Amino acid sequence: MATGGAPFDALSSLDPETFTGESRAVISFLADYYRDVETYPVQPQALPGRLRALLPDAPPENGEPMEVILEEVRTHIVPALTHWQGPRFFAYFPMNASTAGFAGEMLSTGLNIVPFMRAASPAATELECAVVDWMGKLAGLTDRLLFSGGGGGVLHGSTCEAVVCTLAAARDRALSRLGDEGILRLVVYASDQSHCTFQKGARIVGIPRSNFRVIPTTAASGYGLTADSVRDAVEADVASGLVPLYLCATVGTTGLGAVDPVRDLGELARNHGMWLHVDAAYAGSALICPEFQHHIDGVELAESVSMNPHKWFLTNMDCCCLWVASPAALTSALSTNPEYLTNVTEESAAGAGVVDYKDWQIALSRPFRAMKLWVVLRRYGGAGMRAYVRRHVEMARWFEQALEADGRFEVVAPTRFSLVTFRLRPRHEGDDDAVDGLNRRLLVAVNGSGRAFMTHFVVDGKFVIRMAVGGAMIQMRHVQDTWELVCEKAEEVGAVLK
Amino acid sequence: MATGGAPFDALSSLDPETFTGESRAVISFLADYYRDVETYPVQPQALPGRLRALLPDAPPENGEPMEVILEEVRTHIVPALTHWQGPRFFAYFPMNASTAGFAGEMLSTGLNIVPFMRAASPAATELECAVVDWMGKLAGLTDRLLFSGGGGGVLHGSTCEAVVCTLAAARDRALSRLGDEGILRLVVYASDQSHCTFQKGARIVGIPRSNFRVIPTTAASGYGLTADSVRDAVEADVASGLVPLYLCATVGTTGLGAVDPVRDLGELARNHGMWLHVDAAYAGSALICPEFQHHIDGVELAESVSMNPHKWFLTNMDCCCLWVASPAALTSALSTNPEYLTNVTEESAAGAGVVDYKDWQIALSRPFRAMKLWVVLRRYGGAGMRAYVRRHVEMARWFEQALEADGRFEVVAPTRFSLVTFRLRPRHEGDDDAVDGLNRRLLVAVNGSGRAFMTHFVVDGKFVIRMAVGGAMIQMRHVQDTWELVCEKAEEVGAVLK
Repeated sequence: MATGGAPFDALSSLDPETFTGESRAVISFLADYYRDVETYPVQPQALPGRLRALLPDAPPENGEPMEVILEEVRTHIVPALTHWQGPRFFAYFPMNASTAGFAGEMLSTGLNIVPFMRAASPAATELECAVVDWMGKLAGLTDRLLFSGGGGGVLHGSTCEAVVCTLAAARDRALSRLGDEGILRLVVYASDQSHCTFQKGARIVGIPRSNFRVIPTTAASGYGLTADSVRDAVEADVASGLVPLYLCATVGTTGLGAVDPVRDLGELARNHGMWLHVDAAYAGSALICPEFQHHIDGVELAESVSMNPHKWFLTNMDCCCLWVASPAALTSALSTNPEYLTNVTEESAAGAGVVDYKDWQIALSRPFRAMKLWVVLRRYGGAGMRAYVRRHVEMARWFEQALEADGRFEVVAPTRFSLVTFRLRPRHEGDDDAVDGLNRRLLVAVNGSGRAFMTHFVVDGKFVIRMAVGGAMIQMRHVQDTWELVCEKAEEVGAVLK
Repeated sequence: MATGGAPFDALSSLDPETFTGESRAVISFLADYYRDVETYPVQPQALPGRLRALLPDAPPENGEPMEVILEEVRTHIVPALTHWQGPRFFAYFPMNASTAGFAGEMLSTGLNIVPFMRAASPAATELECAVVDWMGKLAGLTDRLLFSGGGGGVLHGSTCEAVVCTLAAARDRALSRLGDEGILRLVVYASDQSHCTFQKGARIVGIPRSNFRVIPTTAASGYGLTADSVRDAVEADVASGLVPLYLCATVGTTGLGAVDPVRDLGELARNHGMWLHVDAAYAGSALICPEFQHHIDGVELAESVSMNPHKWFLTNMDCCCLWVASPAALTSALSTNPEYLTNVTEESAAGAGVVDYKDWQIALSRPFRAMKLWVVLRRYGGAGMRAYVRRHVEMARWFEQALEADGRFEVVAPTRFSLVTFRLRPRHEGDDDAVDGLNRRLLVAVNGSGRAFMTHFVVDGKFVIRMAVGGAMIQMRHVQDTWELVCEKAEEVGAVLK
């Protein structure tokens, strides 16, 4: 129909030969990237607007060859990337890539099916049901949260989505009792260490801003919530006519890796008819090792649990497991049944007990994420994944011990998983402000070297440096080098022994 | 640290050699799939639970080779897939894969960065800002919705996410005036043809169920909304003390491809202080052709517009463009600034006018979708994409003409883009129920043949068959074969000329 390079390309965009050739070029590009990424500064020296200025104001009229595009990725884009997969990335939390995660994503992207309901692709729904049960069993969850025990799971893109969906489910369950006006009385509880997604999620689902409680934590409880402090807040709210709705317990907080006591909070939640959500976004991966499973003791009291395989489980972005004890609570808040999605050949889904995942999440369209997690679990197995997690825990402990053996530093919160939180100590009483400035300069110096990238947190008014171990490429030598780098920069910014 | 196959694999999961070998195996697998997909039944004959029964109850303890896993995809999973990329898939709406979309997704997945804010990877934010402006210009949007004109865009995963975010923005803008209790008085308007995501989105953000208005449409307006009918509803609500909040206009509805009059609705929305959202999820791709741009005449009156490149723009799942006239409305509803995300080396983002995309969406973590859309636009160019869209429009018109030339069928709504809606006609007055049964049997027969997959809709009580042209592999011969199939099955179910 059309002649000439570009239009012809778009008209035969899945020609197997072109597909193979161009895809292989991308594979080579990425293999080179993985080989070289260690040599790049982890954070780019990219002035705002620099890449933007290199890009034309409009797309090309005619298509261009893949080589030209890849060359531009190499020259324009890669130098302005923060290298999350580099072995010296210790910022935020890790976001693991792996060959298996990549292969799974390629299969999902290549098949490009949209399994919003079983009828739209039966294999995808059944694989997802199987794989969330697999993952839940590995992580030591109670059967009550698995399909095999009457609960069930779904793969979302992010914890935020899981939080919005569970908040909407809890809200609608409460409003069916209280009526619409009840929304003004619902209260959500989290700690000052909980992820900001809970506050954002509560706002998204319409909980008044003034009904979000941030319960303070202290060093005494390792920055975990105490049931007493939550109970006080809940009782005060009940006394003023409010309705406790939802309580968030975190296993492995973002700032410090703290752990809330799931059993205590679960019992409190039961007593007050609250929905308990356990957020194990990061540390959920560690739960596959029996030595960490005590952190979710009491999980049978939770209404929902979430964790992100895309953080520390070798599963490329994005993938978040959400398990719920009552799928019906979720689907009654989120289900839609327009005519264009009814199935002309099968019995109605609800009636037949079929899982239609569109009713377990925000979006209708959804990628085939189960393929990715399934390939990871098959390729590496339970033993492989445990070895992977334990290696990082070991590295983090080595770094923590190095800090403890050096009089200049202090570890701020105990390293429970693979996140180390530390700072230069004050030299004498009362120089807290000065030492904060010193720590801030230390972090800027470490990051400015391009040889590592860490982020920070503030707790009890103290500036804290976070070193999150967990990247797929990290080896012990990178952690050792980073320790040397921290010592070198500490000297540069003027840290001295007390 | 560990020896033996499986654990070792997980510990060196980005080894460039393993990565190259296993990724190439997946590429070959997919190239074979694209070569053969035409020969598979479009919808599988998969009994519920069949795949699930083939899968063990727990993941393997030891990792397995990639060949074994791919072989299992071939034997267990592919036979239970619905083949969305096959050239005989005409159901729902198309979800295009392409070599460029796949390459872009591979780059994004392989680099695996998480650009939730500029500092987390500057290139990703700047590329996204550039590419949404590119896309907006191609689609003929007003400058007011682009960064270049003071608005701006973001890449979400789905229209549903765009709807939830714009509803939350509109709601919070209203509540800042009305106070929290105002939420009980806010009203959202859509047509009986609007996508179910609007009703779901309104529920998610806490709008009372009774405050969602479904305005009826009729054949007389081609199933588009009329400003008069919306005005009547709005005025009735205002008279009873309610507050009109949000109006949805659709360009290319899901059921019939109908178009709402954007200018009329925009003026009405302005007059009543409502947020107008234009949903062009599917037909937005056609807007890149000047001959279709009259459908968004008046778009300068919209507060937001969305379209899905993952539907009909050769961009593999998932990718939804959302443009807003007022980024501040979006970010004041969705922003969070926890300490662990503040940037120790740069000025605060808000102050410096930097775009931090975490505040433009639900989730914090987000994939690097801009890379995918950028590769598609570069690889195929504006001319290539217009040729692509026009080819499908031509095919759909051919099918429509074939229907019109055959006395047994009627076209239900005019084919404005590439969606054809048709049914067998009643033979005489009053046999509507009988003809519905006939059409239902026709659809079951067509789909049961495995040689095509279409879905249905119901309008004015009539059962309608939807044939959505737009898959990447479709050629005219597939459309012609499908016409023959429809004729053959019509005969089988007993359709006769009037």
